[in-house]
Amino acid sequence: MKTHRRSILKKMFASVAGITGIAWSANAKDNTTPGKEVFNIVTEQDVPLFSGSTKFGNLVFVAGKGAHFEGDITAHTKHVLEEIEKELIKAGSSMQKVLKVSVFLHDLNDYKAMNEAYKGKFGDKPPVRTTVAVYGGVPGDSLVEMDCIAYI
Amino acid sequence: MKTHRRSILKKMFASVAGITGIAWSANAKDNTTPGKEVFNIVTEQDVPLFSGSTKFGNLVFVAGKGAHFEGDITAHTKHVLEEIEKELIKAGSSMQKVLKVSVFLHDLNDYKAMNEAYKGKFGDKPPVRTTVAVYGGVPGDSLVEMDCIAYI
Amino acid sequence: MKTHRRSILKKMFASVAGITGIAWSANAKDNTTPGKEVFNIVTEQDVPLFSGSTKFGNLVFVAGKGAHFEGDITAHTKHVLEEIEKELIKAGSSMQKVLKVSVFLHDLNDYKAMNEAYKGKFGDKPPVRTTVAVYGGVPGDSLVEMDCIAYI
Repeated sequence: MKTHRRSILKKMFASVAGITGIAWSANAKDNTTPGKEVFNIVTEQDVPLFSGSTKFGNLVFVAGKGAHFEGDITAHTKHVLEEIEKELIKAGSSMQKVLKVSVFLHDLNDYKAMNEAYKGKFGDKPPVRTTVAVYGGVPGDSLVEMDCIAYI
Repeated sequence: MKTHRRSILKKMFASVAGITGIAWSANAKDNTTPGKEVFNIVTEQDVPLFSGSTKFGNLVFVAGKGAHFEGDITAHTKHVLEEIEKELIKAGSSMQKVLKVSVFLHDLNDYKAMNEAYKGKFGDKPPVRTTVAVYGGVPGDSLVEMDCIAYI
Repeated sequence: MKTHRRSILKKMFASVAGITGIAWSANAKDNTTPGKEVFNIVTEQDVPLFSGSTKFGNLVFVAGKGAHFEGDITAHTKHVLEEIEKELIKAGSSMQKVLKVSVFLHDLNDYKAMNEAYKGKFGDKPPVRTTVAVYGGVPGDSLVEMDCIAYI
């Protein structure tokens, strides 16, 4: 059942137009929404869908990141953390400045191995974390999805 | 199984007293919790359960919104986004000022259709987004639940 | 199936080294990450895994809390709320100053009983709330996991 779900969803995810495309990066000079900066906008059919990160004041919000390739939970966790780090750096933040992380596992049996790949990655003063498993509910065939809130 | 879950939960959700009632709106002048404003408090048995939105400084937090009527994912997504927009406007914010959205789908097979109804709704500088599916885990028989963090 | 999951996960969770240990508390004087304070760091194999709470400016983020003992949803909800309150107080906040709560239920059938134990616990101006069920996806055999964002 779970495998079936993943198989269907892999196809679905791939079919979202522009999901892997980085469209353009707006900034605070855009006077339509003063105060908000966004980076790495993902579009669908040329319409903005979501951003890779948003920045307001000294807070940074990073989008849910997954690993859309064949691999185990260790490889997926490492990849997701790298994707998060890229967004943080682009927004002027860093792993050490993350305040809160949300972790959505495909399967809770991956909890321990996820921890192994996760521990220490945010420095000596790690963010809070909330972890749940959604049993097939992570888009794009990823074994884990993570987002975060950080500061600059 | 999923249908069964939804059927049970529909009844359960309806039985929560006051769940649809807007009780009263407090504001920052309430000196018990200076600095916080809340809107559209939902009560259960006359006891405050949660607010429709909370405001602190220039940040606005909107409660998880669902669609509690018969309909497909397109109708439910549109409704949920309208409910979110109402809360944002009431709190002095707007769809264009949303920083982060969390999306909980009933079924990940609705991912693509949800995107169709979702794209473009937050303007040219969209918020970050995290989407997972919880396979029957959205209260009140809704096909999708969304919350957000915004600014004013 | 669900019972099986819980049984496996109970063992898994117990095996995470240091998961119940409060390691040490850093503070803003740590010049590696100025501006962030963290409390009740949980380590795994002596490596920082996550914090019980983080503080930045006047915002407080509390980690996902579960109840890792035998008990029903009422007992688990009460325990989780007590754990959240402890973190809030330690960080200089309070239940009355919570802005946003996320609730992850093991089973959506516990929704009503969770509400009974939850209502009124955050004062007359309650936080927003987002509730979903993850059907076995809460780590450590807990029937519910909650986190929050608050202010000081």
